[in-house]
Amino acid sequence: MIVVLKDSATRENVQAVKDYIVGKGAQVHESEGIEKKIIGIIGNKRVIDKTALNAFPGVEHVIQILEPYKLASRKFHPRNTIIDVKGVQIGGLEPVHMAGPCSVETEEQIWEIAKEVSEKGGHILRGGVFKPRSSPYSFQGIGLEGAKWMYDAGKEYNLGIVSEVMEINDIEALYDYVDIFQVGARNMQHFKLLKALGKTDKPVLLKRGMSATMNEFLMSAEYILAEGNEKVILCERGIRTFVQHTRNTFDLNVIPALKNVSHLPILVDPSHATGKTDLVSPVTLAGLAAGADGFIVEIHPRPYEAYSDGDQSLNFQQYDALLKDLNILRDGILTLRKQKLEKVELECI
Amino acid sequence: MIVVLKDSATRENVQAVKDYIVGKGAQVHESEGIEKKIIGIIGNKRVIDKTALNAFPGVEHVIQILEPYKLASRKFHPRNTIIDVKGVQIGGLEPVHMAGPCSVETEEQIWEIAKEVSEKGGHILRGGVFKPRSSPYSFQGIGLEGAKWMYDAGKEYNLGIVSEVMEINDIEALYDYVDIFQVGARNMQHFKLLKALGKTDKPVLLKRGMSATMNEFLMSAEYILAEGNEKVILCERGIRTFVQHTRNTFDLNVIPALKNVSHLPILVDPSHATGKTDLVSPVTLAGLAAGADGFIVEIHPRPYEAYSDGDQSLNFQQYDALLKDLNILRDGILTLRKQKLEKVELECI
Amino acid sequence: MIVVLKDSATRENVQAVKDYIVGKGAQVHESEGIEKKIIGIIGNKRVIDKTALNAFPGVEHVIQILEPYKLASRKFHPRNTIIDVKGVQIGGLEPVHMAGPCSVETEEQIWEIAKEVSEKGGHILRGGVFKPRSSPYSFQGIGLEGAKWMYDAGKEYNLGIVSEVMEINDIEALYDYVDIFQVGARNMQHFKLLKALGKTDKPVLLKRGMSATMNEFLMSAEYILAEGNEKVILCERGIRTFVQHTRNTFDLNVIPALKNVSHLPILVDPSHATGKTDLVSPVTLAGLAAGADGFIVEIHPRPYEAYSDGDQSLNFQQYDALLKDLNILRDGILTLRKQKLEKVELECI
Amino acid sequence: MIVVLKDSATRENVQAVKDYIVGKGAQVHESEGIEKKIIGIIGNKRVIDKTALNAFPGVEHVIQILEPYKLASRKFHPRNTIIDVKGVQIGGLEPVHMAGPCSVETEEQIWEIAKEVSEKGGHILRGGVFKPRSSPYSFQGIGLEGAKWMYDAGKEYNLGIVSEVMEINDIEALYDYVDIFQVGARNMQHFKLLKALGKTDKPVLLKRGMSATMNEFLMSAEYILAEGNEKVILCERGIRTFVQHTRNTFDLNVIPALKNVSHLPILVDPSHATGKTDLVSPVTLAGLAAGADGFIVEIHPRPYEAYSDGDQSLNFQQYDALLKDLNILRDGILTLRKQKLEKVELECI
Repeated sequence: MIVVLKDSATRENVQAVKDYIVGKGAQVHESEGIEKKIIGIIGNKRVIDKTALNAFPGVEHVIQILEPYKLASRKFHPRNTIIDVKGVQIGGLEPVHMAGPCSVETEEQIWEIAKEVSEKGGHILRGGVFKPRSSPYSFQGIGLEGAKWMYDAGKEYNLGIVSEVMEINDIEALYDYVDIFQVGARNMQHFKLLKALGKTDKPVLLKRGMSATMNEFLMSAEYILAEGNEKVILCERGIRTFVQHTRNTFDLNVIPALKNVSHLPILVDPSHATGKTDLVSPVTLAGLAAGADGFIVEIHPRPYEAYSDGDQSLNFQQYDALLKDLNILRDGILTLRKQKLEKVELECI
Repeated sequence: MIVVLKDSATRENVQAVKDYIVGKGAQVHESEGIEKKIIGIIGNKRVIDKTALNAFPGVEHVIQILEPYKLASRKFHPRNTIIDVKGVQIGGLEPVHMAGPCSVETEEQIWEIAKEVSEKGGHILRGGVFKPRSSPYSFQGIGLEGAKWMYDAGKEYNLGIVSEVMEINDIEALYDYVDIFQVGARNMQHFKLLKALGKTDKPVLLKRGMSATMNEFLMSAEYILAEGNEKVILCERGIRTFVQHTRNTFDLNVIPALKNVSHLPILVDPSHATGKTDLVSPVTLAGLAAGADGFIVEIHPRPYEAYSDGDQSLNFQQYDALLKDLNILRDGILTLRKQKLEKVELECI
Repeated sequence: MIVVLKDSATRENVQAVKDYIVGKGAQVHESEGIEKKIIGIIGNKRVIDKTALNAFPGVEHVIQILEPYKLASRKFHPRNTIIDVKGVQIGGLEPVHMAGPCSVETEEQIWEIAKEVSEKGGHILRGGVFKPRSSPYSFQGIGLEGAKWMYDAGKEYNLGIVSEVMEINDIEALYDYVDIFQVGARNMQHFKLLKALGKTDKPVLLKRGMSATMNEFLMSAEYILAEGNEKVILCERGIRTFVQHTRNTFDLNVIPALKNVSHLPILVDPSHATGKTDLVSPVTLAGLAAGADGFIVEIHPRPYEAYSDGDQSLNFQQYDALLKDLNILRDGILTLRKQKLEKVELECI
Repeated sequence: MIVVLKDSATRENVQAVKDYIVGKGAQVHESEGIEKKIIGIIGNKRVIDKTALNAFPGVEHVIQILEPYKLASRKFHPRNTIIDVKGVQIGGLEPVHMAGPCSVETEEQIWEIAKEVSEKGGHILRGGVFKPRSSPYSFQGIGLEGAKWMYDAGKEYNLGIVSEVMEINDIEALYDYVDIFQVGARNMQHFKLLKALGKTDKPVLLKRGMSATMNEFLMSAEYILAEGNEKVILCERGIRTFVQHTRNTFDLNVIPALKNVSHLPILVDPSHATGKTDLVSPVTLAGLAAGADGFIVEIHPRPYEAYSDGDQSLNFQQYDALLKDLNILRDGILTLRKQKLEKVELECI
């Protein structure tokens, strides 16, 4: 951490800052430029509170040099994290394929979709039973019974199950029925939920908040990791910007940027990242070409009958077209992934 | 709601859309332009799901004309909502003055601050005991004991108490100690928490999420209102933009915009809206000049010793300076507020 | 266009709006819902000014249904525009490959780079001689002489030349030396420059402004098209958002979104879209996978000696690695492009 | 400037960076932490290119500590800049009042408005004759004749004239008719225009670009100042964000933030900052309460007949109401301004 002092800082101001730093067990390294005086902090900088330092008289601002996360960092865990779900290796060579409806609606619906996902080579069945909706008058989810239907359908078709938890109590309720807990974008900083998930033994699919920086995203992962659960799967689902041609702006850059600094697998959610069915295929292809470890897509046999997110759900014909497009790039993407895995291995030796 | 059809929409496509609308109990009103064909929907449009309509073959996009909120709307409640807390009228003529530390730290700290707030004419004492922090390694709040200290200090100095709840269980825990429950920006769309708060009889201070639109903000208020709790206080605390000179961007525009469409009181939080102590005073003045019903500000006797948010907390000298600045504009602001209240009354007759 | 009326609109208000519309030669189509009354406008809606309508007493807001652009629209020009530059088909099957330094610096530098681009199979040599720099104290470009060096190098190595014009006078100055005029992001709405470019017979590479919506981007293209120059090449170079892990946020979504509504070719500029050399390759691959018609990348033999943008310029080794990555996806991308071209053809029959 | 090195940086990498810095005439100050090694640069850091340093092998990133502007900085010019226009002191005690139509339309229109502005105590008449419009099919401005009308009306009513220049040639064309040249938001980084304005002797009203950071805004001012023209007036007119309830988001924070770091006067443009007539008054009041040196507002006798921006232009009744609201806060605002001017004086002694 580096403390930049004001021109008007007095000798007493500087001494107070230095005393504070030393009192926290770190060392001080002063440096005086022509226009600015700065103090470098040497030691385990995570113990020092940036905002407190900023509050000292005479301090202009404080610059954090070290990334704030630790367990999520590739420095502490150089190899990629690979998470096994019913034999599927999330973060491994093969990109993972997750699909399903936004909301579980009826037993028939989820079985019809499970069959389709299975036949199309999907690995994980998605479906929400507790739904965060911006309106209190909208459908709020079918509830626990939907999770049981998913469980049965997943068993029949050998598909893992992922479903969203909105609060701490949902974890226990869903525990027996799902293979992966999902945390939605709106809850990315529901820290008590993250801590509770950190104490379970099931993987967590953590969606990026719509205005979360990369560091905040990784710090939310860190909440789970710090409690002992190493199975965190990141998911980019679009951020909120001034753009109007899509519901959200897919931040493609964050995929390779995350791969550089973190070992955690990262998926793309093209349905939320665009909000438009006709953009789902190009965005999925792009995400995988940029290094994403898989995708999670909303599908529905009759989107116009869907209880939620009908406008961004693929029908089965569109889903089929997506998979055909993916198949065209498949060999190239696998070759790229193999190269990268080998490069990581080389750097670990 | 208006459905804009694609040029390629077939007669069957159009019929399917019309059947859907009529099936929902609404009426259809067709209109054909030179380049575009549209279908208007007449009836209680809130029963029709925009995303489902969007998913029909042949539909280009769907335009919502009616605002999505109802109970929060000034149309359904033309007069301003005024909320009484220990005799203070939030939303009344006099702007409410809330102050206190980011975190409750020690009994001495909160008593020292309560005394200061009381002496400076403050109405409500703020202080967090459960803290949402972006890092799991940061101070997470002193816990329930801190709420008891606040309660006692508030009693002694005749100050109402506001404190943040992060999850449903916090409501019961804090119930006996606080006068107002606060929902933080990160939890603005924690819908189960909002519903639970809607079932209590205490006022809720709802902070705007950092990427929430005005409609989403009001829909979160609607969650609370729809459960029967009419005592919702809105709070603008800055949004996330590309700007780097402040921690957040204070959306001043939203204050008069909210006043136009909603009857709920709206406060400004200049501490989070700027993240910088030297901007707190001008932003507070500006907020009140634009029609805000009060302010909530972070103060600390020694900000550099604060456990959190030291950089944006005013020390007592800065707090005093803020109040002196406010006093200079006081008469003008009261005259403006009186005018507006009279105008609302006139429109209600 | 649809005019939504206020509840308080009087009969006179409504009549005034209708008179205005009819006076402009369009027709009126009224519709009354339960809560809202609206007026639809039928006719060539581009003649009616939305902001004027908004200013009528009794009008709540005005909704534009028709896209504001015409010549840039795929409706008016269903087939893709293909632009020939020295035998290279921009917008054709093969993605175009443009590379070169941010700034032309010396004759040796540009010849060294031209040789490299040529040997690596590049089509167009980029290089700025007039540089828009945020600081008046930074290098402002080598000037016209640099354009002559580029011209000679391009002739020797059979590369087309693209270079930026910052004002109207630059067009004539560069005319004899370049094959494509570039308009930078900061000038996307320098409308007099666009009009002047619309009167030339050379292609224009139009970069998206960093806060431009898709419609604004296409309207800037429309300025050029409306003057008679049909050779407009769009370029996505990243938008400004709250994100801090990259210099800009690459809006991948806009590529397929533009392809849906416009016939103009669209390139990706991974150098500006990320600002980081190690993200250039994944972003280029992603852009092409999503349907971009090519890429324009900054390279430099010794980036740390570059006069500008050294941090985002690839050195020759990184450039080579990018092209190897691209080669891995090449067959897949060509197959996808062929499919899309066939689909467009089918829709045109 | 501080160079943060990668963990993998070799001894040779570090030496190359140090040689580069020393070669530029600056000094090096090394510092090694537990996890990070950094190099501080001491000397006139403005000579060193941050992007070049970033491009050295072994460099992780480079942090700029010094602000990039110099002449615009309060450090180099501690007292407020006050600009005299026809006897009005822009930046002085009294906030400046500018008003007029978006576009000059007819001689009658501008005379009618000039009379109104004069009678209401306005100082400067605004009006565009060259209009930057997002559509090539919209009204592009009445041209030079309009400037002559403004000049005559300004003479009659003793009002200064401000009008927009869109390109270099406009400066000479308008020189004889206007007192202040305006640079629009879309041209804030039209650097050749800024340089040309820096060579004139007339004040320049520089509007902030809709995605410009504060530093970029001040660097554009620096372009003008560096050519010798010290008469720069800044203007905040709203930035582009995700927000949908207003056309732009008024960045109130930037007003006090600019006052802290720069000596230049700053105005608010509530018309563009909101795009809605009913928000103009609260935003103007707020801007002045936060320390702005005046306001520039769009007015029109019959906004629904305006050739442009009718939806955000006040009619004369609304204009009158704005001025009455302002009058209510007038004494308070003058007292606050006087205090601040005295504080600046004290700091200059």
